[in-house]
Amino acid sequence: MSTTTEVPQDLKQYTLETAQRAKEASRQLGAISGAVKNQWLKSAAARLREQTTFLLEANQKDIAAAPQYGLSEAQVDRLRLSPERLEGIAGALEELVMLSDPIGEVLESTRRPNGLQVSKVRVPLGVVFFIYESRPNVTVDAAAICVKSGNAVILRGGKEAFHSNQAFHQILSQTLVECGLPEHAVQMVTTTDRSAVGHFLELSELIDVTIPRGGKSLIERVAAEAKMPVIKHFDGNCHVYVDLSADLKMAAEIIVNSKCQRPGVCNAAETLLVHSNVAAEFLPRAAEILQENGVELRCCERSLPFVPGGVAATDADFHDEFLDLILAVKVVDSVEEAVAHINHYGSHHTDAIVTRMIEPAEIFLNQVDSSAVVQNAATRFNDGGELGLGAEIGISTDKFHARGPCGLRELTSYKYIIQGQGQVRS
Amino acid sequence: MSTTTEVPQDLKQYTLETAQRAKEASRQLGAISGAVKNQWLKSAAARLREQTTFLLEANQKDIAAAPQYGLSEAQVDRLRLSPERLEGIAGALEELVMLSDPIGEVLESTRRPNGLQVSKVRVPLGVVFFIYESRPNVTVDAAAICVKSGNAVILRGGKEAFHSNQAFHQILSQTLVECGLPEHAVQMVTTTDRSAVGHFLELSELIDVTIPRGGKSLIERVAAEAKMPVIKHFDGNCHVYVDLSADLKMAAEIIVNSKCQRPGVCNAAETLLVHSNVAAEFLPRAAEILQENGVELRCCERSLPFVPGGVAATDADFHDEFLDLILAVKVVDSVEEAVAHINHYGSHHTDAIVTRMIEPAEIFLNQVDSSAVVQNAATRFNDGGELGLGAEIGISTDKFHARGPCGLRELTSYKYIIQGQGQVRS
Repeated sequence: MSTTTEVPQDLKQYTLETAQRAKEASRQLGAISGAVKNQWLKSAAARLREQTTFLLEANQKDIAAAPQYGLSEAQVDRLRLSPERLEGIAGALEELVMLSDPIGEVLESTRRPNGLQVSKVRVPLGVVFFIYESRPNVTVDAAAICVKSGNAVILRGGKEAFHSNQAFHQILSQTLVECGLPEHAVQMVTTTDRSAVGHFLELSELIDVTIPRGGKSLIERVAAEAKMPVIKHFDGNCHVYVDLSADLKMAAEIIVNSKCQRPGVCNAAETLLVHSNVAAEFLPRAAEILQENGVELRCCERSLPFVPGGVAATDADFHDEFLDLILAVKVVDSVEEAVAHINHYGSHHTDAIVTRMIEPAEIFLNQVDSSAVVQNAATRFNDGGELGLGAEIGISTDKFHARGPCGLRELTSYKYIIQGQGQVRS
Repeated sequence: MSTTTEVPQDLKQYTLETAQRAKEASRQLGAISGAVKNQWLKSAAARLREQTTFLLEANQKDIAAAPQYGLSEAQVDRLRLSPERLEGIAGALEELVMLSDPIGEVLESTRRPNGLQVSKVRVPLGVVFFIYESRPNVTVDAAAICVKSGNAVILRGGKEAFHSNQAFHQILSQTLVECGLPEHAVQMVTTTDRSAVGHFLELSELIDVTIPRGGKSLIERVAAEAKMPVIKHFDGNCHVYVDLSADLKMAAEIIVNSKCQRPGVCNAAETLLVHSNVAAEFLPRAAEILQENGVELRCCERSLPFVPGGVAATDADFHDEFLDLILAVKVVDSVEEAVAHINHYGSHHTDAIVTRMIEPAEIFLNQVDSSAVVQNAATRFNDGGELGLGAEIGISTDKFHARGPCGLRELTSYKYIIQGQGQVRS
């Protein structure tokens, strides 16, 4: 096996032909049973385990090239494969086997007064163009989710993971063919020329949805250029609001977990809002634990006196997603003020209230306009696995089509099947 | 009452303020119960009946201005209101009362192993920008569907119906305020300057979805310019395929009804496909009845000999949506060829098969990639009322978010509500 690939000469023609092959594959995929798709997932998992040496060698080329891309130590670590990580990737494929096939699911079926049987049936979206950055495991996860949901996918990974991605793709392609699935159900873009992305984003007749996953500038560029629908996956500016009726011990555990358990992810908390009635009691306590965990606290004028070692926050601190051990802190006078702050400064991702009272909980859960609103738990639970969706391809910050974690069902559409015995309209 | 309105001086500022008022109204609407929204629908229906004279006078101004817009007799007829038509519009509002409130509906709710209760709950999209053409009843229908589904709406009707639309809007606004709903839940664009549309299409932070309903060029322009999601409502290039096993009497009734019952609508048939085994028997019979109904038949080479009075079709005839008493006719040799033709030439709207056999029906229903696929019934049934959705704001030809008829539920999103007792992630 080798990971050498030709670089396409005419980019525009290359993107068109790639998308045409994907469309054709998506038509074929529509007729393939769940059992066959599951057989592929199992075969691919087995092959990944067999080909550990091949995959680690390919990955080694990326690791060797990392300095030329200026990757930090943490970034190199995310890029690195190991036998344990490969086992994790293979295991994730096997977990997908356990999820029921979304395609063909009858969402509703009614008999109309005129005898027509009307069924709303789940179908694939068609072709997914998935653009992502460094971690190579995403290549396998995304391909598997797309194919299991009946979609063909065009993968465009980061240049830092080029060799690893190519190696994964070779294994996925070969097992697709061996299992009787269309080879082009999973295609990998073989050029790192960034203008290829622009060409793909024009092809709205062939590509049904684009999913960019990465930094904000990538997502903004894709959303601005794409002629087809985009599922946007912005990072989250998430809040924890501690109500005057909160169990303060619980509140401290929740903000510490929401901020510190994994600070670099989109469902980590970025701002702590505290009701003025409990600020004097809660803030010094919470600040101490947060600071023990290495968190820098950026405080509004009213919270600063209660936070020894805190620094004064600017307005920008309440807009920012730090993705780091930094937390903005603000005192508010009511749940309504907390809701207004969140709807103004937040990114409609995940926001939590800690309270023992029903009324503020209802106001918060109903009025905060976010993909997930949380009562008495950490923001970190807004995640496909934690919510029971199984694997996810991203967390949508849009309201349209899919909101929150995007799993198998979020990559589907539906059609109406109308069955009659000669009915006509009068 | 009067229908005089000021023409805004600064269009860009005007569109921004209109959208900001809509966003604020949408926030307020989220907290309003279904009972209050229903009370508004009933009040508006009653007021429309009381204000018949006012409405007919406003409509008369549009009728008088019709010649300057070069409207045809049929177009003037669609524009014209009458006491009977007003009763129909009021009655449609009362029918909406009967439909259950989509907002707050719990789509799914599960208890996770860690004790978290995870509920997926239906919420409004937010702000709808609705662009439509002449018929003034659409003003009332669209406003009612949007408000009942918890959305604020910005209505942009055609200039031909300007006075009628303004009069309807006055009544809707007044009854909104009287019923305790936000006045700006329904706003009407008070300028006919087309560049206002362009300004609205920029406001993706304030407008959640744009729905253009009208000619293809309008929809294409909106889809190209809009920075927010668009639900596209293209007209339909719909097919009826008569299989070799069809009940030919039923097939004739279905194609005649699909073509002739209302030829100017999107779910009328535009192409008849006939299996070669039954072409000689079926086509002369069907052609005779279609021609009696005034239908011009444009035939492929193989069908022409069986259609006395038919004319030779061009390739363009199979792409076109005639919206008129014209039908393209083509002979095919298999259900697979019919499916391939439809997926290539069609507009993914509504396509029907007439057959007595299970296998071709399954192939057709599974493989035709359209919002509705129909077995042994007319294409005309792809309609919100006929499918049991109640009122509709359009028929989506997209696969993303909403496909087929868009009723109340298609104007909604959802959020996850996560309720715990202090859970944190480990």
